[in-house]
Amino acid sequence: MECRNFVRGKITGLNIDKLVSLESENYSDPIFMVRLMVDNRILSFEMGRLIYEVVGNAVVENRHVVVGTGSSQLILAAMYALSDPLNDPNPVSVVSASPYYSSYPEMADFLRSGLFKWAGDARTFDKDGPYIEMVTTPNNPDGFIREPVVNRAKGMPVHDLAYYWPQYTAITSAADHDIMLFTVSKCTGHAGSRIGWAIVKDEAVARKMVKFIEVSSIGVSKEAQNRAATILEIISLSCCTKSDDNKLENFFEFSHALMAERWKKLREAIKNNKLFHLAKFPKLHCNFAKDYTETYPAFAWMKCNESGVDCEKLLKGHKILTRSGKRFGSDEEYVRISMLSRDEEFDLFLLRISAIVHHDN
Amino acid sequence: MECRNFVRGKITGLNIDKLVSLESENYSDPIFMVRLMVDNRILSFEMGRLIYEVVGNAVVENRHVVVGTGSSQLILAAMYALSDPLNDPNPVSVVSASPYYSSYPEMADFLRSGLFKWAGDARTFDKDGPYIEMVTTPNNPDGFIREPVVNRAKGMPVHDLAYYWPQYTAITSAADHDIMLFTVSKCTGHAGSRIGWAIVKDEAVARKMVKFIEVSSIGVSKEAQNRAATILEIISLSCCTKSDDNKLENFFEFSHALMAERWKKLREAIKNNKLFHLAKFPKLHCNFAKDYTETYPAFAWMKCNESGVDCEKLLKGHKILTRSGKRFGSDEEYVRISMLSRDEEFDLFLLRISAIVHHDN
Repeated sequence: MECRNFVRGKITGLNIDKLVSLESENYSDPIFMVRLMVDNRILSFEMGRLIYEVVGNAVVENRHVVVGTGSSQLILAAMYALSDPLNDPNPVSVVSASPYYSSYPEMADFLRSGLFKWAGDARTFDKDGPYIEMVTTPNNPDGFIREPVVNRAKGMPVHDLAYYWPQYTAITSAADHDIMLFTVSKCTGHAGSRIGWAIVKDEAVARKMVKFIEVSSIGVSKEAQNRAATILEIISLSCCTKSDDNKLENFFEFSHALMAERWKKLREAIKNNKLFHLAKFPKLHCNFAKDYTETYPAFAWMKCNESGVDCEKLLKGHKILTRSGKRFGSDEEYVRISMLSRDEEFDLFLLRISAIVHHDN
Repeated sequence: MECRNFVRGKITGLNIDKLVSLESENYSDPIFMVRLMVDNRILSFEMGRLIYEVVGNAVVENRHVVVGTGSSQLILAAMYALSDPLNDPNPVSVVSASPYYSSYPEMADFLRSGLFKWAGDARTFDKDGPYIEMVTTPNNPDGFIREPVVNRAKGMPVHDLAYYWPQYTAITSAADHDIMLFTVSKCTGHAGSRIGWAIVKDEAVARKMVKFIEVSSIGVSKEAQNRAATILEIISLSCCTKSDDNKLENFFEFSHALMAERWKKLREAIKNNKLFHLAKFPKLHCNFAKDYTETYPAFAWMKCNESGVDCEKLLKGHKILTRSGKRFGSDEEYVRISMLSRDEEFDLFLLRISAIVHHDN
């Protein structure tokens, strides 16, 4: 592929074998020494560039990259950066369309900030004045592609694109929004590193977000930044390796196949039953895969068809732990199920949910 | 020394040479594999135990350890944990005796929290009701040992002990306070790791601090925790090695000697002049060194003897960057100078300040 020389060129003097060995985090490798000498800005720049050249899921040219302790810190940083300059005596409303990421309400409200305040479901929001709309697309918990729903003059959307990667969904275009949030947690699965980054159009907003990070944690762990940069580079490289090289398996193809298998197994486990329902997603053309691809969200947003049933409770009775739809501003008939658990856990989950289905039919 | 077997016993099957090699962060080493499998709690426990057994600067038995993204995140976590359960409609006052750490006011106020609010110099604080007093000891910026100054019934002190390590000050006793904050940044100099930890008496307070960390960043980088745990173990071990082993130099003796040299040079550079003044510190008995030791703070809190002179401005004119006393709730005659800069920077600083002294005398 054409990006190969680009990636190779960047990591001067190292061949693919050496790069693979970096995954084992041998810090005595020369490239780590180089990294140790670069500062946050350059690391940020590398993270915000390479992977997007390869995947094509976001516009990064002439944008500012802000690195945070996971995307959680960046969600708060964005709320701060957008609300503080308004000098409004009242807190700015923060909304998101239901079902929304269950942490948004608590993040907005836990410090009783005078700058911003959770105002609930974006679909029923009818206040005048400025507001912040969290747009998670693909959405957590339900996996659907979203756009802002309020669409008023003083709206300030924050696009949480944590799941906009080819293993979950088709990359239909390069996202191009004012503030876009990403995290290694969902891109590569390295949640323990706590590395997220924001791609920001407006320099003043980016600087204000950096200010938030400085006041709340001074900076972001260098060890985690180094590791994340290495991982993202390896993944970028894996997407540019010709299959006959047989060196690095394309990370997103590999992950997409894994997700496909899990979703297939889950759909099989609950098919022919009247109890549970899972949405179907349209096949869309993915610019990364250069083909039409299926959608395999990181979470299954499952509905219990019997109205009034507390689905979380029902499943808990069968030793399946899920998160109730109520936590996402939705109904108790819904639950969110992680599709990213370890193999043993996921297999056990399939066994247990199959047992319910067979028992109840 | 007697702690040797203890340390050796803990790190089973590894000799000192191998431990030293861990500093280069070879992640394929077996001990790292062990670490990868332990969770935050155990890592926290190790960090909060080994080094204190060796140094004796804090009571850790039956305490809770909360790990944060630097002690900055833990300062905010403590403010949250102490104020939120009060359910007070008005924000709780946060105070600290001047000169205080310049970030406290901004940390307390930047989100306009309804839970807590900066209320200035603890010495002039006269409001009734609950309050949080930040007690930094040894103090940043001036290096003096401190105790709470308000001492009212509803006071909630938070002891910031970032500088209570033997390279800076005599360890006169094991500190034993409700909330004690530490950071690798000042203990070992690894500020880029952003690892701090709190030693907390009350379990409910500790849990609430963890809650703050969960909402604001979900967790703390595992890479940084692993590296910090390794570094603290190596340092602990270095303090237990007999000098004739000639393997590991006692980290705190080494650092104390470095600090002594820098302070000697700075005092020499400004001696015999009427312009600048530095405080003298009493020699105190250090339980770690088992001897009387000098105090060498991480910052020099320097006064310009001519009243009305903006010392920061004066020094900036001579290409010396410092932080004005005004930022610490004090006067413009004072500046804070870092004593922890790199050798080249510190030598340049000495050259430039000597030039002022010679010119003005």
